[in-house]
Amino acid sequence: MRDIAVFSGTAHPDLAAEICSHLGVPLHPVRVSRFANDCLEVQLQANCRERDVFLIQPLVPPVQENLVELLLMIDAARGASAGRITVVLPHYAYARSDKKDAPRISIGARLVADLLTSAGAQRVLAMTLHSPQVHGFFSVPVDHLHALRELAAHFRGYDLGNTVVVSPDLGNAKEAAAFARMLGTPVAAGAKQRFSDDRVTISTVIGEVADRDVIVLDDEIAKGSTVVELIGHLHQRNVRSIRLACTHGLFSDGALTRLAAVDGVREIVCTNTVPIPADKRVPELTVLSVAPALAEAMRRIHNGESVSALFG
Amino acid sequence: MRDIAVFSGTAHPDLAAEICSHLGVPLHPVRVSRFANDCLEVQLQANCRERDVFLIQPLVPPVQENLVELLLMIDAARGASAGRITVVLPHYAYARSDKKDAPRISIGARLVADLLTSAGAQRVLAMTLHSPQVHGFFSVPVDHLHALRELAAHFRGYDLGNTVVVSPDLGNAKEAAAFARMLGTPVAAGAKQRFSDDRVTISTVIGEVADRDVIVLDDEIAKGSTVVELIGHLHQRNVRSIRLACTHGLFSDGALTRLAAVDGVREIVCTNTVPIPADKRVPELTVLSVAPALAEAMRRIHNGESVSALFG
Amino acid sequence: MRDIAVFSGTAHPDLAAEICSHLGVPLHPVRVSRFANDCLEVQLQANCRERDVFLIQPLVPPVQENLVELLLMIDAARGASAGRITVVLPHYAYARSDKKDAPRISIGARLVADLLTSAGAQRVLAMTLHSPQVHGFFSVPVDHLHALRELAAHFRGYDLGNTVVVSPDLGNAKEAAAFARMLGTPVAAGAKQRFSDDRVTISTVIGEVADRDVIVLDDEIAKGSTVVELIGHLHQRNVRSIRLACTHGLFSDGALTRLAAVDGVREIVCTNTVPIPADKRVPELTVLSVAPALAEAMRRIHNGESVSALFG
Amino acid sequence: MRDIAVFSGTAHPDLAAEICSHLGVPLHPVRVSRFANDCLEVQLQANCRERDVFLIQPLVPPVQENLVELLLMIDAARGASAGRITVVLPHYAYARSDKKDAPRISIGARLVADLLTSAGAQRVLAMTLHSPQVHGFFSVPVDHLHALRELAAHFRGYDLGNTVVVSPDLGNAKEAAAFARMLGTPVAAGAKQRFSDDRVTISTVIGEVADRDVIVLDDEIAKGSTVVELIGHLHQRNVRSIRLACTHGLFSDGALTRLAAVDGVREIVCTNTVPIPADKRVPELTVLSVAPALAEAMRRIHNGESVSALFG
Amino acid sequence: MRDIAVFSGTAHPDLAAEICSHLGVPLHPVRVSRFANDCLEVQLQANCRERDVFLIQPLVPPVQENLVELLLMIDAARGASAGRITVVLPHYAYARSDKKDAPRISIGARLVADLLTSAGAQRVLAMTLHSPQVHGFFSVPVDHLHALRELAAHFRGYDLGNTVVVSPDLGNAKEAAAFARMLGTPVAAGAKQRFSDDRVTISTVIGEVADRDVIVLDDEIAKGSTVVELIGHLHQRNVRSIRLACTHGLFSDGALTRLAAVDGVREIVCTNTVPIPADKRVPELTVLSVAPALAEAMRRIHNGESVSALFG
Amino acid sequence: MRDIAVFSGTAHPDLAAEICSHLGVPLHPVRVSRFANDCLEVQLQANCRERDVFLIQPLVPPVQENLVELLLMIDAARGASAGRITVVLPHYAYARSDKKDAPRISIGARLVADLLTSAGAQRVLAMTLHSPQVHGFFSVPVDHLHALRELAAHFRGYDLGNTVVVSPDLGNAKEAAAFARMLGTPVAAGAKQRFSDDRVTISTVIGEVADRDVIVLDDEIAKGSTVVELIGHLHQRNVRSIRLACTHGLFSDGALTRLAAVDGVREIVCTNTVPIPADKRVPELTVLSVAPALAEAMRRIHNGESVSALFG
Repeated sequence: MRDIAVFSGTAHPDLAAEICSHLGVPLHPVRVSRFANDCLEVQLQANCRERDVFLIQPLVPPVQENLVELLLMIDAARGASAGRITVVLPHYAYARSDKKDAPRISIGARLVADLLTSAGAQRVLAMTLHSPQVHGFFSVPVDHLHALRELAAHFRGYDLGNTVVVSPDLGNAKEAAAFARMLGTPVAAGAKQRFSDDRVTISTVIGEVADRDVIVLDDEIAKGSTVVELIGHLHQRNVRSIRLACTHGLFSDGALTRLAAVDGVREIVCTNTVPIPADKRVPELTVLSVAPALAEAMRRIHNGESVSALFG
Repeated sequence: MRDIAVFSGTAHPDLAAEICSHLGVPLHPVRVSRFANDCLEVQLQANCRERDVFLIQPLVPPVQENLVELLLMIDAARGASAGRITVVLPHYAYARSDKKDAPRISIGARLVADLLTSAGAQRVLAMTLHSPQVHGFFSVPVDHLHALRELAAHFRGYDLGNTVVVSPDLGNAKEAAAFARMLGTPVAAGAKQRFSDDRVTISTVIGEVADRDVIVLDDEIAKGSTVVELIGHLHQRNVRSIRLACTHGLFSDGALTRLAAVDGVREIVCTNTVPIPADKRVPELTVLSVAPALAEAMRRIHNGESVSALFG
Repeated sequence: MRDIAVFSGTAHPDLAAEICSHLGVPLHPVRVSRFANDCLEVQLQANCRERDVFLIQPLVPPVQENLVELLLMIDAARGASAGRITVVLPHYAYARSDKKDAPRISIGARLVADLLTSAGAQRVLAMTLHSPQVHGFFSVPVDHLHALRELAAHFRGYDLGNTVVVSPDLGNAKEAAAFARMLGTPVAAGAKQRFSDDRVTISTVIGEVADRDVIVLDDEIAKGSTVVELIGHLHQRNVRSIRLACTHGLFSDGALTRLAAVDGVREIVCTNTVPIPADKRVPELTVLSVAPALAEAMRRIHNGESVSALFG
Repeated sequence: MRDIAVFSGTAHPDLAAEICSHLGVPLHPVRVSRFANDCLEVQLQANCRERDVFLIQPLVPPVQENLVELLLMIDAARGASAGRITVVLPHYAYARSDKKDAPRISIGARLVADLLTSAGAQRVLAMTLHSPQVHGFFSVPVDHLHALRELAAHFRGYDLGNTVVVSPDLGNAKEAAAFARMLGTPVAAGAKQRFSDDRVTISTVIGEVADRDVIVLDDEIAKGSTVVELIGHLHQRNVRSIRLACTHGLFSDGALTRLAAVDGVREIVCTNTVPIPADKRVPELTVLSVAPALAEAMRRIHNGESVSALFG
Repeated sequence: MRDIAVFSGTAHPDLAAEICSHLGVPLHPVRVSRFANDCLEVQLQANCRERDVFLIQPLVPPVQENLVELLLMIDAARGASAGRITVVLPHYAYARSDKKDAPRISIGARLVADLLTSAGAQRVLAMTLHSPQVHGFFSVPVDHLHALRELAAHFRGYDLGNTVVVSPDLGNAKEAAAFARMLGTPVAAGAKQRFSDDRVTISTVIGEVADRDVIVLDDEIAKGSTVVELIGHLHQRNVRSIRLACTHGLFSDGALTRLAAVDGVREIVCTNTVPIPADKRVPELTVLSVAPALAEAMRRIHNGESVSALFG
Repeated sequence: MRDIAVFSGTAHPDLAAEICSHLGVPLHPVRVSRFANDCLEVQLQANCRERDVFLIQPLVPPVQENLVELLLMIDAARGASAGRITVVLPHYAYARSDKKDAPRISIGARLVADLLTSAGAQRVLAMTLHSPQVHGFFSVPVDHLHALRELAAHFRGYDLGNTVVVSPDLGNAKEAAAFARMLGTPVAAGAKQRFSDDRVTISTVIGEVADRDVIVLDDEIAKGSTVVELIGHLHQRNVRSIRLACTHGLFSDGALTRLAAVDGVREIVCTNTVPIPADKRVPELTVLSVAPALAEAMRRIHNGESVSALFG
């Protein structure tokens, strides 16, 4: 069997280190040079030849820097005769650009999938893609893990007798319904009208939420504007308590502080697909690790064992 | 400017003829031979060389026959030196196979998109794809029309003062919400749990429907099982009247008769993206034509005018 | 070494089972679902990851259904991270569409070869392709077996002292000559003029056939019209007896019954590349099995042994 | 309309000049440099930008030199922003390598087709390919002309009342039968057994030839060994006269002199797809020009008119 | 003729505006949105359908942002059915990563060329690529302009009687020699030894420089460390005066101020391929415009006229 | 591990045999047939299936014959199901055609790289490419060895105290400087002006050479005209002695005899990447073998060991 060789870009070395620790393999260093003209050059610091190479790099901010760095890593691995190149994308930010809802716009999720393949990626391991269709944007095999299992395990520690799962958006309502089924609770959803990236209006909440303990579930929380507005509607409906849950906690522009300060928010739960600096964290934040799941998937990919058998 | 040349496969010649009539161009014949070993051979019966070729073929039942026939038509046009090949897909049945929700299954929507490109399609004109992400499955430009405009024009002929648009499924709820905004009505949705293709259970309807005139909106109605079950829930909630609307009226297995017989169903509205034989039609059925919209899009594609400007 | 994993589509499960029995490996099940809109979905029911996957599916009627099903199987195997995907095509019906003998027609044999590759096929195992050039239509390696060995073994059981091999068509005459050399007999051929798929005229038979025992050899017999007409010419030349032989016994439209009833036809010999239902069989029919040959080829492909060494 | 720009490599400038004369357009010069290390460099000596570029180069001896030169011409035209690149191949020598009749051999006809496409060819105009299936080896549109029309026009000048067309080989018998139908004569064929490229044995001639005027038809005559042997068999059958006809007159190793000296050979007819130096010609040789046919096809390709309408 | 449509990314709108002014066509706006998760989305604000689209974007700092923005622009133009997409790259920063001089490093110049093609670029217009071989990294046609003409025109305004052109590096010496020939002066070169990106040592200057007016020529000046060190060597050789010239004036990390302060530097000449903010400029700086050259090349590309005829 | 299988074309069987001797593996025979129409056919004479196939073929004169033969060998290996195909190119003649220094010329180095990939090459092992950028022309992994180590080992046997390395051309000056650093000597270079392939003028030598022992280093010597002219300039500068060194000793048109006869030339050193017939050799010639280096690289490629670790 070809040896495994795991490399991490600069996007999230802590997660990569944690994964390698679970796998019991070394995390090989990568030298990333920035030339005076701002170009990057990548050197993989361990032999790749005929190895089963895994490149770990979530597409988190600065997204463009991390993306180009990843493309250069793939190119370097290919040129260095890697036996197989698997890109591990704990967060695929461009997945949100998955449709053409205005004329003459880019479809970033498909473009970036093609760029990764063009650079030489032969397989992708992803986590909680924004929509399940993004899987089909890749022309190479994708193993798509979901963090709902981790999130559900966490919430099962609470009394869920009076709980409802609420999706901020009809677009994510199907995912919320699946989560609700895992927890044995009903589901509700905000009917959102998006005017622009900055200005969102939730016209209504459909489904029963009054006197309920609410778990708001989204795949990703960035600025959190939608969630804040949803909470306003929920309070109008007299909900009892509010917990926020997401896989990808981007929390940009001070979102964590802002969300924690919203009346009634008891807890904010996310996973570690996105790095959160210590000085941005708030007491209400709980971060669950997806490193064990990613490590186990990588082990199975490497060994040719079924991934679906575990996470299906 | 290259001349236009429009061909139709055997899937829906009536629609093709109606489109050509709107365009004011002839519909060129296609000879489809079936050999004794069941293989098909296609011959385009007009010169394609350097022409702007449009091939009209909805992927309706028999889907596999129509798909392979379409692939052969594309191949014939390419081999005959067509200047450009645009596939007109009024119904893209495989769009529903857009995600991998079980291990080791095919993603038909991406596969067929790749097959069309592999055969030589250079552009696609589609109508109401099952999910907007399917657009991104194509590596060639797609013009994606929606029939909501035609459907809305029809329903604006009624008093909508007490109406609610209901999506049978959370997955289609966003589309239903957009339709509701076009009509100025609220929206609701069934929270469906799919056990298998045959056995569907709608656990609940989220949103207010009591004493309302309901328009049930879906992209496609095939056997109609989900709709029938939804209607049961709606009656439990004491709705006032029910109208059904969809773009793609497949109505398989006697669905039209069955739906028309359901208590409270006043009208079934669809478009002519799928052919409906005269002997399957019921008095409650209203079929709206998308031929004008498709013809205008083809005219603009041919002339290099903006398609989004019209239908955006 | 990667494990082998053999799957069969719905085209010819009996042949697949017989092959697996020879190989001593299980035939893994495939779930083929047909949705209400007539689309197919395929699920391979065993782990494919890094396996050496063989997909057995002759392109027999219904050809289009079987072709799309096969493409979906390939797509599923690719998406499931198969180590290598070999398509086993005991009968490749589209091989007959191998040239452009009229303007603006499709060349199905090349198109379908491209479709299989586009879906993810990495290797093909084929049996008696209509013309040897079809091999070159594939951009992936092809192992091309011939059933002449099996057919010759059968006929060597007869007294061949006064026998002549006759090709119904000059296009197949080279193959017939090779078969004649294997049997040590002379060769003759019908000079056919094809007016359309339905109307065939054999203007003459070139070569000596009078007072001979004739073996008519073709690669495939579908409706058998050409063979029937040839037999008329042969009787005019006073042949002694007639046996029919082919690799692919499609026998469409009651051909078996019709051929068996023709005066002077003593035997009809074919192989099992195409399934023949029990109720269509006639006493004059002899079916030879190619399962041992296909199984041995698959074993050698899997083990990296020379296939040509065996069948060259 | 894009202007036409015609270039000729060094393989057959006379034919190119004759074609351009028929087209009424200049033949643009090509500078071919050979460096001291034997590499070639090609410079097209006229602006190609957005032009409809035709590159005329039959693959005649020295085949490898002419092939690489052609590939470099295509590359130069592509890099010079040609609007469209059509390769005119009056003789495609590698077409004979169209099948894999021994293990581990190259299939040159498919390989070279791929190389031409890889270099940038977008369309091919070919003349009398060795087998009609070679058409399908190209992934770009091919216009395939046949010289049978020119050959038939020539032979119609004779009294054909007692004539038979004979193919030296069963593999070419179908083509010979088509030619015979054009002339209204019967057909016969040699049943050849090929032991190696140098040693050929014709075991028999099938069909009636005694007391006939024979026209031997092949697609290409190189050394002519097969033809010489066939003539021996024909004389044993007491034929009356012999004329030889082929499209591609390669006549290698003094074949012309040798064939002309064979007893009973009255005429050798070929076309000018292959250059024949004046000092190799013999009095029995008649060379028909395909330049008018190629020029007319190029004119129609350039103007987007049907090519099949003319030559079908 | 297809209409022209010119768009500029955010990298250098001033240059784009100047080009459009020379062309006499409008510069169409591009909306670049940055989502809360740091992803970019691009919308071209004018109809692209069948237009001859030019996208102007030098890869200047921030290089990664500008590169991904450019890729998204290409994707948007392709999806919007652009007739042809030409990428105008006045500065291609990644061109310096053109070789693999250490194991397991990326070759950015080839990778980015592939990414541009993968996104949909069909043609590139570049200016003074770091090495002429980079041209060959693109699989699409490249028009490669050189700014030496503009630089030479400027320096011809001086008395060049005692001048020598000096390349800081043997790698650029050939370009310097060409420039020297244009000016009619001799050439010299620093023999540089590069230890790392930051630490450069010029061991010697080969060629005569004593008592000469020196023009130091490089393709790009970023931090200027090499130039500063070269000037030290030049002063040891007692040169008379020093002028610096380059095409791409990146001047990172205060390079302009630093170079202007070096003893003996009379002038720093560059072009406007890279934007230089007003507050970074120094009195010694002369910026020549390449907009007329780029505009003329674009005009010729659009009209199908020879570009080499002008700039060859 | 897959077995290794090494084949040699007809270009340089002695080198291949020497490599195999170092590797301790058999050199498998290749049958190359030339048909009467001058086409080549290649048959690999040993099983390739799943083998790690190495094809050794320097592109030496006759370059076009050797190139097409190599392409056919690759095609045969691919069709024979080779596990991996590595092309060993000890001399890649077309590497000199690496830029577009005139309009409408071919870039042979990129074209041939694409042709090799198109035929099926999956990896390349090259030796001293003309410019390091040529590495980037290949889309497959390249292991690029340099013969400077072998050349330096040879020259270290001399007293180098008063030696200077001279590049005939500024374009090769960087390589010469690297060689000089290996020997601990200074470097100089001819400033060449190339008017055509035949007519070269070295205008000057830049750097100190007077009273020095000169080693002239180039990557390849073909006719040697440049070197001869350089020597004239060197004698004008009163050099003490002259030795010539290159990796690729093509020595065309009697170059060896001519160079050996030039006044002051003491030795001509090259490697065996190019075959030199015994009757062309001169006493001044020293040929160093690169077979050990190539064999060791092939061994490491086969075993998945780092190649750069050895030769970096």
